[in-house]
Amino acid sequence: MGNSFGELFKVTSFGESHGSCVGVVVDGCPAGLPVTGEDIQKDVDRRKPGGGAAATRRVEEDRVEILSGVFNGITTGAPVCFLVWNKDIDSSEYEKTRYLLRPGHADYTAFMKYGGFNDFRGSGRFSGRITVGWVMAGALARKLLRLKNIEVLAHTVEIGGIKAAPRDFDEIKEKVESNILRCADPAAASEMEALIEKARAEGDSLGGVIEGIARNVPVGLGEPVFDTLDGALAKAMLAVPAVKGVEFGAGFSAAGKRGSENNDPFTVADGEIKTLTNNAGGVLGGISNGMPIVLRVVVKPIASIAQNQQTVNIKTLEKANLAVRGRHDVCIVPRAVVVIEAMMAVTLCDFAMRAGIIPGVIK
Amino acid sequence: MGNSFGELFKVTSFGESHGSCVGVVVDGCPAGLPVTGEDIQKDVDRRKPGGGAAATRRVEEDRVEILSGVFNGITTGAPVCFLVWNKDIDSSEYEKTRYLLRPGHADYTAFMKYGGFNDFRGSGRFSGRITVGWVMAGALARKLLRLKNIEVLAHTVEIGGIKAAPRDFDEIKEKVESNILRCADPAAASEMEALIEKARAEGDSLGGVIEGIARNVPVGLGEPVFDTLDGALAKAMLAVPAVKGVEFGAGFSAAGKRGSENNDPFTVADGEIKTLTNNAGGVLGGISNGMPIVLRVVVKPIASIAQNQQTVNIKTLEKANLAVRGRHDVCIVPRAVVVIEAMMAVTLCDFAMRAGIIPGVIK
Amino acid sequence: MGNSFGELFKVTSFGESHGSCVGVVVDGCPAGLPVTGEDIQKDVDRRKPGGGAAATRRVEEDRVEILSGVFNGITTGAPVCFLVWNKDIDSSEYEKTRYLLRPGHADYTAFMKYGGFNDFRGSGRFSGRITVGWVMAGALARKLLRLKNIEVLAHTVEIGGIKAAPRDFDEIKEKVESNILRCADPAAASEMEALIEKARAEGDSLGGVIEGIARNVPVGLGEPVFDTLDGALAKAMLAVPAVKGVEFGAGFSAAGKRGSENNDPFTVADGEIKTLTNNAGGVLGGISNGMPIVLRVVVKPIASIAQNQQTVNIKTLEKANLAVRGRHDVCIVPRAVVVIEAMMAVTLCDFAMRAGIIPGVIK
Amino acid sequence: MGNSFGELFKVTSFGESHGSCVGVVVDGCPAGLPVTGEDIQKDVDRRKPGGGAAATRRVEEDRVEILSGVFNGITTGAPVCFLVWNKDIDSSEYEKTRYLLRPGHADYTAFMKYGGFNDFRGSGRFSGRITVGWVMAGALARKLLRLKNIEVLAHTVEIGGIKAAPRDFDEIKEKVESNILRCADPAAASEMEALIEKARAEGDSLGGVIEGIARNVPVGLGEPVFDTLDGALAKAMLAVPAVKGVEFGAGFSAAGKRGSENNDPFTVADGEIKTLTNNAGGVLGGISNGMPIVLRVVVKPIASIAQNQQTVNIKTLEKANLAVRGRHDVCIVPRAVVVIEAMMAVTLCDFAMRAGIIPGVIK
Repeated sequence: MGNSFGELFKVTSFGESHGSCVGVVVDGCPAGLPVTGEDIQKDVDRRKPGGGAAATRRVEEDRVEILSGVFNGITTGAPVCFLVWNKDIDSSEYEKTRYLLRPGHADYTAFMKYGGFNDFRGSGRFSGRITVGWVMAGALARKLLRLKNIEVLAHTVEIGGIKAAPRDFDEIKEKVESNILRCADPAAASEMEALIEKARAEGDSLGGVIEGIARNVPVGLGEPVFDTLDGALAKAMLAVPAVKGVEFGAGFSAAGKRGSENNDPFTVADGEIKTLTNNAGGVLGGISNGMPIVLRVVVKPIASIAQNQQTVNIKTLEKANLAVRGRHDVCIVPRAVVVIEAMMAVTLCDFAMRAGIIPGVIK
Repeated sequence: MGNSFGELFKVTSFGESHGSCVGVVVDGCPAGLPVTGEDIQKDVDRRKPGGGAAATRRVEEDRVEILSGVFNGITTGAPVCFLVWNKDIDSSEYEKTRYLLRPGHADYTAFMKYGGFNDFRGSGRFSGRITVGWVMAGALARKLLRLKNIEVLAHTVEIGGIKAAPRDFDEIKEKVESNILRCADPAAASEMEALIEKARAEGDSLGGVIEGIARNVPVGLGEPVFDTLDGALAKAMLAVPAVKGVEFGAGFSAAGKRGSENNDPFTVADGEIKTLTNNAGGVLGGISNGMPIVLRVVVKPIASIAQNQQTVNIKTLEKANLAVRGRHDVCIVPRAVVVIEAMMAVTLCDFAMRAGIIPGVIK
Repeated sequence: MGNSFGELFKVTSFGESHGSCVGVVVDGCPAGLPVTGEDIQKDVDRRKPGGGAAATRRVEEDRVEILSGVFNGITTGAPVCFLVWNKDIDSSEYEKTRYLLRPGHADYTAFMKYGGFNDFRGSGRFSGRITVGWVMAGALARKLLRLKNIEVLAHTVEIGGIKAAPRDFDEIKEKVESNILRCADPAAASEMEALIEKARAEGDSLGGVIEGIARNVPVGLGEPVFDTLDGALAKAMLAVPAVKGVEFGAGFSAAGKRGSENNDPFTVADGEIKTLTNNAGGVLGGISNGMPIVLRVVVKPIASIAQNQQTVNIKTLEKANLAVRGRHDVCIVPRAVVVIEAMMAVTLCDFAMRAGIIPGVIK
Repeated sequence: MGNSFGELFKVTSFGESHGSCVGVVVDGCPAGLPVTGEDIQKDVDRRKPGGGAAATRRVEEDRVEILSGVFNGITTGAPVCFLVWNKDIDSSEYEKTRYLLRPGHADYTAFMKYGGFNDFRGSGRFSGRITVGWVMAGALARKLLRLKNIEVLAHTVEIGGIKAAPRDFDEIKEKVESNILRCADPAAASEMEALIEKARAEGDSLGGVIEGIARNVPVGLGEPVFDTLDGALAKAMLAVPAVKGVEFGAGFSAAGKRGSENNDPFTVADGEIKTLTNNAGGVLGGISNGMPIVLRVVVKPIASIAQNQQTVNIKTLEKANLAVRGRHDVCIVPRAVVVIEAMMAVTLCDFAMRAGIIPGVIK
């Protein structure tokens, strides 16, 4: 029963990797927002495999259909249902190795939790494919956020140990789509691409780090003490398959800092209170402080690898070896960038509504 | 409206630092659990300032009162209300500097969100003091978890850049309370203590990292795709004041690893499926996999420091300098260990109930 | 944001009367339940206009499609999405009278709440048509309840002032589908049908009362003090379009009774505690007591009538007259019977799961 | 886990009849609202036994204490905790008859649900006494509603079959507190009082009907299709001990009406759209339509009666006779009026916040 996210902008996800479709219902989207399939399609297309070294060979058209909640191109206040049909399904590999637990995958936990009834094909409900639904919801959220001038942007800052040089927001925005890795540092991107090529050749995979930034977020988003903005964002981030950690602002580096270094001094600029630095990552006491929200998530290397791995047959409890076949990415980081953006947008939109900043009717 | 946490074991927090009390209501605690004030008091006492270099000089008796939900020493199924009264309150310092925003604190965001009506004394609702309530709820949760043999343990693994050597669970359990820093590596603890003494002398503060471990968690806790176990734990962790990041298992180090290194191979031990390594930190696909849940949180250096800092008067918008007086810890990490344990326990208890592992009546 | 119902068996509704489809997502359906489209279709077919005097002339095939959550004919634990496509859409009448508020309809409130962006065609989101989705969810819930031998049954007990004679459960079950009015008293049914014919001739409409009964509900369903079983059922009932009241057991007649009459004496039968009477309607203190759950709802006469009515043009604020054309039922009671059953089943299933009576995996 | 009510104005109830206290936490109360204990005390005092024929002889001072969320007499945005201590506790009668199930009470269901661990003294959690907490929350809600000119008023319209003559809002408001029965028709009130005296003499009890009205509710409250305003009100009403049914506007009488009678024609008055009649009770399609919200609830006769009743000993399963002693009301209706008002206010306040009509900060 955990397939809904958000309180006022409530996203309910459905669909499986090799089922008939992947979809999402957004309940609480304000009435009066112009929305076309094309608006949504853009982000869905960005999420598709890029064709480069990193990507899967499964090719889905992923044509966005709007099933409800939009009338004459404008949201009505009713639940919005978006859906894409699954078409390029090849489940044959999965049938063959059905009971061999793929290391690093949810095969074991899903089997145990759902009594073996889970749809195992292409990881079923645990596939990255279901994030198509989230990206559709995110595209809707971003349209709403833009009405308040709030921008959400994510980019690749590390792959396989290779780190991108820091860039400012405008530079990132300009460069992030200039290469297939969604890395705003082209030199690092080249290195990353070479490393990915190498990993593929070795039948291996790579992880990395994505940074997400939200700009022009007003002061006051977040509902302490438990529904904090950073807590909700963290929960959203960890829902993204393969994400294993999240940090805000200075993050883990704050462990080695002193208070005098880490505190962000307040100042006044253009009549508004700002901080001189942003070690807080835009959140103080669980509430946005008007500075950019800055977070980083770690994405583990893709679990499906061609190399032989030790595992177990869950039916027989016999040990086995498994080399995962099928059509997989080598490094999901560049595609996950789009999902990170989507889930940040969904979360921010929900909190903006809770704070009364986005109204129930757009006029 | 964000002061409740959990679905079936639902914790509602109330109280302020300098108000009359700090309390908590736990709705959904199973009936039939023996509970005494002493059971709860133990954890509350552990959270109190230790008297060492790191600690505040505010001394509260923090006597646990059970206001409801327990009859003849046994839970009744009705909401359990725990409360401690605030006694040693000295708000004088806060009155003097009421409008000077303390860098790193929630003064600014709270003022903006609540229109300046927030109780500013001792950080009010944003004080670490309110976590007394969470620790009381956590003590209750831990009693329930122990019925299923689930243990939750946290310890200090880093302060101000000094890192503790790794220890196994039993060693940590044995040593964690042997020093005031709750660090299972006594040598590192000595260094940390010296560093804290130095920081105090300089009017500065320190942050660190806490590791939380839960052992004997059964397979199947977590409600994908959004109410994942790790996502809920992350949200719980980020509610703890000063926490700025959380990671599971290999965490951020996974960014530099290959899939072949990071995947945990499956094996069979004593007829049960286990993994040979635990880079996943006990969670796969948002669901516990039977291995220990391992997470680490970063705790930023305490924001209240005696050094002069640049800030702004929120009434006049004039720049100002501020040296925070009052009674503060230098490093909150050792005390936060108890809060991390509590919030992990609360989260695990909620998910154990959602998975039907802890029943509605204890027999 | 109110389009979800339930906590553990969570139903999310989407779709509009004249949009592309009507659907539902059920999150929390246990894994392991065999489900075919046919299982669901049966209840959907019962909800369709019966062809008699009472019914609309809109004819929809209402072919149930299972979009997710079922694999190889068995639920997987993932969200189940059911959908029927809208086909027989004729919106012409609605366009003509778009701004004329139909008395008794939600035209005015929907226009005001959603800023005039609501889909007005065929009442859009406020049409009885969206209950197709609820009936699909209800069919799923009933399958789960049947595993525990719990039966849900509703029937017509009054139309336009004509009351059916009381019948016991088995008699109702046997006779309810024997006439088009779903009334277990055939004599009363004949009178009702004549009255409906008369009302239709006069361009008028009729209301009535439906009784819902659930048998074999175990003791213990309900979560006081606010999530009571009767409270949740009442909320579910009032969501059904045209329902304006609900009562349990003796209901409103209890106002004229004495405690000595109204109290149900306890007794023991076959080793189980029962009550001799059932004025409580199966609920004491918000918790099921093992006796049949008995409720009655009042269904107002259909608002769409062919007679001239006084109204207002919401654009011009000018008074106007309106005779509602389009394809409408004269009395919705017989079709609402199926929706009442569905919403009772959904509610009971949710509470059975909350009480741990229906497990997370069906074996 | 059902002890919270509301989404944005969230009320959490705790305490028992014979425990140490009865309390409530209100999470989501806007900051900036002046509140004193006296404001809240007024409604609490109204709920106390009136001293007349109908009332219990238990006398509690019920002194309201504000434990949190109010600073300098103004709400801070933090959770507000109100509490009254229980003082006049006499549990002796309950101990003696502990295992004899009182007919009409929740003894049996509570015992079964909570494994016999429920606090049985004075009905524990199922006592009308816990509604003191709700009345405190309601008093807070009413203060917020008054800022928008929304008034909530309830009154006795029937006791033991004696019905009050209809009165208009202002008349009710003027007369409701003029007699101990809270009945705006003094002649009927006299008859009711005589009947109560008779019932008391016979060791019996009486039920009745309460009407609740909310005036000046703006158009647009309610979140279809499931969180309807009437549905939420119905759920709130059924939480009130002894309430067994609820109806809106014409209610059950609509079953005998034709659409042409029951539809409320629209008109324009002072530039606003109104209806000429109010059979809808102020709700269309689950959304308030600007007309007064009018509901009626049936209150069953008090279950505790001095007459001998047949029952069962739950420990031995032997049949027994029971005459309930202790200190009980004969007719709870007049006191329940205050609770109905409170729960209406809490519900309306929550929906007004959801509709953005009551802001997060009162200025």
